[in-house]
Amino acid sequence: MCQSIFRNKPDTTVVFSLINRTKSIRLAELIDEGELREQLDHVRSLSLSRGESTWLRGNTFYGKRQMFRPDFMEWFEGMRLPDYHLEKRDGQYELTFEGRWPEVMLWEIPALAVLMELRSRAVLRDMGKFELQVLYARAMARLWEKIERLRRIEGLKIADFGTRRRHGFLWQDWCVQAMQEGLGDAFIGTSNCRIAMKRDIEAIGTNAHELPMVYAALAESDAELAQAPYRVLADWHDEHDGNLRIILPDTFGSEGFLKHAPDWLTTWTGIRIDSGDPAGAAEMAIRWWKERGEDPTRKLVIFSDGLDVEKIEELHARFVGRVKVSFGWGTMLTNDFRGLAGDRLAPFSLVCKAVSANGRPTVKLSDNPNKAMGPAEEVARYKRVFDVRDQDAQDLLV
Amino acid sequence: MCQSIFRNKPDTTVVFSLINRTKSIRLAELIDEGELREQLDHVRSLSLSRGESTWLRGNTFYGKRQMFRPDFMEWFEGMRLPDYHLEKRDGQYELTFEGRWPEVMLWEIPALAVLMELRSRAVLRDMGKFELQVLYARAMARLWEKIERLRRIEGLKIADFGTRRRHGFLWQDWCVQAMQEGLGDAFIGTSNCRIAMKRDIEAIGTNAHELPMVYAALAESDAELAQAPYRVLADWHDEHDGNLRIILPDTFGSEGFLKHAPDWLTTWTGIRIDSGDPAGAAEMAIRWWKERGEDPTRKLVIFSDGLDVEKIEELHARFVGRVKVSFGWGTMLTNDFRGLAGDRLAPFSLVCKAVSANGRPTVKLSDNPNKAMGPAEEVARYKRVFDVRDQDAQDLLV
Repeated sequence: MCQSIFRNKPDTTVVFSLINRTKSIRLAELIDEGELREQLDHVRSLSLSRGESTWLRGNTFYGKRQMFRPDFMEWFEGMRLPDYHLEKRDGQYELTFEGRWPEVMLWEIPALAVLMELRSRAVLRDMGKFELQVLYARAMARLWEKIERLRRIEGLKIADFGTRRRHGFLWQDWCVQAMQEGLGDAFIGTSNCRIAMKRDIEAIGTNAHELPMVYAALAESDAELAQAPYRVLADWHDEHDGNLRIILPDTFGSEGFLKHAPDWLTTWTGIRIDSGDPAGAAEMAIRWWKERGEDPTRKLVIFSDGLDVEKIEELHARFVGRVKVSFGWGTMLTNDFRGLAGDRLAPFSLVCKAVSANGRPTVKLSDNPNKAMGPAEEVARYKRVFDVRDQDAQDLLV
Repeated sequence: MCQSIFRNKPDTTVVFSLINRTKSIRLAELIDEGELREQLDHVRSLSLSRGESTWLRGNTFYGKRQMFRPDFMEWFEGMRLPDYHLEKRDGQYELTFEGRWPEVMLWEIPALAVLMELRSRAVLRDMGKFELQVLYARAMARLWEKIERLRRIEGLKIADFGTRRRHGFLWQDWCVQAMQEGLGDAFIGTSNCRIAMKRDIEAIGTNAHELPMVYAALAESDAELAQAPYRVLADWHDEHDGNLRIILPDTFGSEGFLKHAPDWLTTWTGIRIDSGDPAGAAEMAIRWWKERGEDPTRKLVIFSDGLDVEKIEELHARFVGRVKVSFGWGTMLTNDFRGLAGDRLAPFSLVCKAVSANGRPTVKLSDNPNKAMGPAEEVARYKRVFDVRDQDAQDLLV
């Protein structure tokens, strides 16, 4: 995604901002500001190591050798993360990043991972050594029970998408290894390149909401706005094929997106369903492919929103054979500490999003109004342009 | 106990034998004979290290400094375990030790610990790394839940008696540390001197059935036999006081033992209840103290048979305030792997007992006929001499 932005929109100025959608978790009271600054400063001091660069340059991603172009890699090797702006307000941290899009975007994952892990450490700090060990023992036993259930799903394909909201780095690394051993070939990879490299598994991932959000914010007219999500994918289409050609339709409402989509998009490999009612969205995609003369059984549906074992079982049972099904499992893989340490480690809904581009606010509607963001008047305009009607609200667990 | 034997019966020739009371566990099919011999030979190569000897000589046991006499310590430092005899029969190992009593008796604990641990290793051998880690995670979480329940028992006093039938050494060491952290002062010690030394906690223990069993086997007449259990405690009385003066009454039936006990025994600190119905046996002891003019609230009752959390809670609730209550928790502390690895790690009833002394068979009746041992005609004679009537059989879990 960074390479695409580096090629197509390198000079866009963006602001990314941390948003804690779970107001009851008062991060600024849990996490020491000095400790947070120390970690963020440390992240800024990092750059791609020689081995990491070699791995990125030499690795095969989705069957394609040298996916990263030399000019991108050269820039990436020299890249340092830009400065951050940190303030406390109402028990929360206001953490923002401003600068060139291809640089600022790279803050999302480390910023979230640092905050999540510092929160975990704050909770764990006062625990006894054995109490602590038992806490992890319980979390391990819990994940293993999930893996034992997943093992019974014939033909399962599942990946780790849990980096940004993980309990901690070592814990994610453990979870990935447990998935490797417990699921074998059903575990198809991780979106964490560092762990993929370390554990010799496939690095996996696709495009995200920030692309249509920023493209949309840059649109000069309603007509341009209406085309922005397709413009993103047209740029993407030029560079990627196969499993990288995955439609993420929900940024401004999946229904309108599919209805007005150009025909070349129907040839894409599949769709990622990341908000709203997942079964309903998958049924909609199947209908869309059929209407456009495509065979859904040759298409891939990636579910990636709020997954846990029950939902994975249910969705797999419903769609297996009708489409190719795959799962990007996030928070409930790498951060299911619910009910442990008196629920003080339960995951929560922390995100880091593009909030403006070249000075204009971004908007996200999604298929769940609880995930919508942006100024009210802009949200109203987007709803009109993208023809979004009433949506069903879904609770946000994470 | 070894010091008492070394002083009073040093030249008795005894045979100790391993007895697996759980015939369904076919140890000789699980454990490789070569591996077993390697471990037993290794045990024979061991002797007290300088640090261990220093600790035994300098330690305070039950408030008494230098409990071990210099002549005993000198002998103990030079002591090596005598040879063993190992054969396979019907899927079981026949493992016997013959020689001087103070030497042979020291085989019991390492022989049992070695067999238990080799059995664990045999079961664990084919497990995956993470499967293995999760197995221990589950066992840890299980023990911690027990500790959390025990923590709620006001005034609890509990010790680790789980060495001989432990899952493994490192696991016992972990359990002891978890008890230390989780229970604080309610955890009063361990019968494992090595762990007591390493973890800086109290070494704790009392006398066992082998003393009356061997003394009884050496008796020259029925009259001497009837007095043998008291003879043991008279020898013991001369050397020990305080918490070491604990009556173990059940070797040949608790009821007759107490009925015919000499008055000086009523002044002892307490009683250990190791077979039969524990509440019934404690009630019997309370009645006995009252009949003999003693105040039961100043007496100690140590429960040590087949304990798990429910029984500890129940017994504590019933006897707290009526006597001083204490628990010696064994197998379900250090080897509760029931239901893990498909129950292939569940604890079982393995013992190592004196089976003869100076060529005569030993007998144990206990308060549970399922724990009785010895030749039938000798059992009948003992039952007559000790006036043992019908007993209620209790299932042997471990």
